[in-house]
Amino acid sequence: MCGERQTITIFPIGVVKFAGEISEIELFPQYTQGLKGVRETETLQILYWMHNLTEDDRNALLAHPRGDRARPKRGVFLLRSPMRPNPIGSSKVEFVKREKNSLFVRGLDALEGSPVIDIKCGP
Amino acid sequence: MCGERQTITIFPIGVVKFAGEISEIELFPQYTQGLKGVRETETLQILYWMHNLTEDDRNALLAHPRGDRARPKRGVFLLRSPMRPNPIGSSKVEFVKREKNSLFVRGLDALEGSPVIDIKCGP
Repeated sequence: MCGERQTITIFPIGVVKFAGEISEIELFPQYTQGLKGVRETETLQILYWMHNLTEDDRNALLAHPRGDRARPKRGVFLLRSPMRPNPIGSSKVEFVKREKNSLFVRGLDALEGSPVIDIKCGP
Repeated sequence: MCGERQTITIFPIGVVKFAGEISEIELFPQYTQGLKGVRETETLQILYWMHNLTEDDRNALLAHPRGDRARPKRGVFLLRSPMRPNPIGSSKVEFVKREKNSLFVRGLDALEGSPVIDIKCGP
């Protein structure tokens, strides 16, 4: 493989349509079969793209823990800060209900409009 | 945003150089600052690309749990199967040691040669 010059292309599977205590993930219709058999009380892991970061946020490799300037900067790979070269968020959520191609979950730490890139049985 | 036609480009930050009980992740040198301050006993979450899947694997939306054909197929978003539209693996690992731009971790469920796309404080 050609190492660091290789890039990977991701095709989002849906979008965070509403963000709140209970969030709505709208899957694009061609992916709904991937939810076949979903049961109540399921724990899921959601991977999403933190779409509102700037190019500078992606280039920063050091950040203050929890944005607290009183604490010394650490490497971004030792934080869960959104700032990182590939801003993929990972949240553990509880499945609440499904309505057609929408999935309602509790505990999603994503903003409205974030592309969803994967859902897994969690954690 | 333009919804499902939008794609996301990922730039790998490193590669799984050796896979075993203790695995070695080699970071590309420009990203090593992102490890600044790493401490022993740290738990990390590694996101990696399951690079050896075929196009068919990416298109399958149903699979047998744990590949067991005796069990009925379920949606891939309710499994941790590598088969999924965006085959990103997520492993919780224990940090063992760092040597220059290599990170040694215990518990990485990735194959040798897999591109590494993110590291976070975990889980």
